[in-house]
Amino acid sequence: MTGTFIVIEGLEGAGKSSAVALVNDFLVKRFPQREIVNTREPGGTPLAEEIREIWKQPRQEPMAPITELLMVYACRAQLVETVIKPALERGAVVLGDRHNLSSVAYQGGGRHLSEQVEALSNITLGEFKPTLTLYLDIEPSIGLERARQRGALDRIELEQLSFFERARQCYLVAAENDSAIVTIDASQPIEAVQADIISALEQSL
Amino acid sequence: MTGTFIVIEGLEGAGKSSAVALVNDFLVKRFPQREIVNTREPGGTPLAEEIREIWKQPRQEPMAPITELLMVYACRAQLVETVIKPALERGAVVLGDRHNLSSVAYQGGGRHLSEQVEALSNITLGEFKPTLTLYLDIEPSIGLERARQRGALDRIELEQLSFFERARQCYLVAAENDSAIVTIDASQPIEAVQADIISALEQSL
Ligand SMILES: Nc1ncnc2c1ncn2[C@@H]1O[C@H](COP(=O)(O)OP(=O)(O)OP(=O)(O)O)[C@@H](O)[C@H]1O
Ligand SMILES: Nc1ncnc2c1ncn2[C@@H]1O[C@H](COP(=O)(O)OP(=O)(O)OP(=O)(O)O)[C@@H](O)[C@H]1O
Ligand SMILES: [Mg+2]
Ligand SMILES: [Mg+2]
Repeated sequence: MTGTFIVIEGLEGAGKSSAVALVNDFLVKRFPQREIVNTREPGGTPLAEEIREIWKQPRQEPMAPITELLMVYACRAQLVETVIKPALERGAVVLGDRHNLSSVAYQGGGRHLSEQVEALSNITLGEFKPTLTLYLDIEPSIGLERARQRGALDRIELEQLSFFERARQCYLVAAENDSAIVTIDASQPIEAVQADIISALEQSL
Repeated sequence: MTGTFIVIEGLEGAGKSSAVALVNDFLVKRFPQREIVNTREPGGTPLAEEIREIWKQPRQEPMAPITELLMVYACRAQLVETVIKPALERGAVVLGDRHNLSSVAYQGGGRHLSEQVEALSNITLGEFKPTLTLYLDIEPSIGLERARQRGALDRIELEQLSFFERARQCYLVAAENDSAIVTIDASQPIEAVQADIISALEQSL
């Protein structure tokens, strides 16, 4: 595959969507001839977005952790097979708001399902992985405070702080062990975060 | 777990729903004191039924085979964890219209994903399995003809005959290798099918 797959990762309110907009502008200017495809997870196709809706919605019926895991991989499989891989084969740059590392952190760390996450990564993705991941690191309490100011919290955002602490630890360990993951200190003022993102892109691309 | 888990399996129009009604009547008479819980797959909980709707619906966007597989296991995980296991722990008889063997046949044989089905069975179910499965064996063309007379076909029912031929082979092989699966000749007149079902229950319970 000739394309480039860039992923933005991080906890709730870390600044992922803001970073995606910034990276998109950077890519448009730097590669004016290349197709850019924006995705988000879970979701990113009409089918996956329908599953996302069911998945995010707080509900009376408790969702088993293994159900949460399988639903998020169903979304990921659909997005990768029908959108991301075809785009990369056309030579596009794919810019993803979350990808597999979110499951390593949230379902693996948060839900204590690390073994099952590894098995599902293998079944669903095999060797497929992003060219570059920018991980926006933030203390959960700060990110959740930013997210809360945006409105009603979804099923995941309603989790306890300890859930997000475990997820953060998984993000940090993964970033330490994989040179294709760059950690950005997202607790800085937005201008400093943006400068770090641009310099990470300049170095990697 | 002290309960009993009975599953009815077979291709489209094999007569599963009719068999479920018959077995339910038999159980009510034979075990008047025991709780009986009816389930169906994919589905059987409000959440799983919502996924079932998305899953069954023919749509423009092609569903990747691996997506189909992960969605059906998401439904199964939710049903097993929140309905079937708790019911068996209460000592109930659970009567299922389809269960894991449908994935062995449809996603394994039909979609050529047998290895992935095995991995997902392990992740989702581990050692959990039905007490008794009644497999209603029928030639796909006959079953599909019965199903067609009922109305509009869903996404799976629209598959080619070869898909169902492969699924049937998987059902037959599984039944040969597992004494907890009893094959019933579902091409017989309904009275003969019913007699065979009752005698299989008498022998096994
Ligand atoms: N460095 C920053 N300092 C202060 N506020 C920020 C910073 N970065 C983003 N924000 C603000 O925090 C809020 C959350 O940012 P954003 O929506 O980009 O986060 P997100 O990671 O996409 O969140 P979610 O996980 O909920 O999608 C927004 O209101 C945004 O303007
Ligand atoms: N042995 C039989 N001979 C003839 N017709 C039958 C027989 N068993 C069931 N039928 C009829 O075939 C149709 C399909 O039966 P049923 O709905 O029980 O099948 P099913 O396996 O549940 O189908 P589906 O997979 O679509 O749920 C019904 O109209 C039913 O009355
Ligand atoms: Mg966002
Ligand atoms: Mg039926």
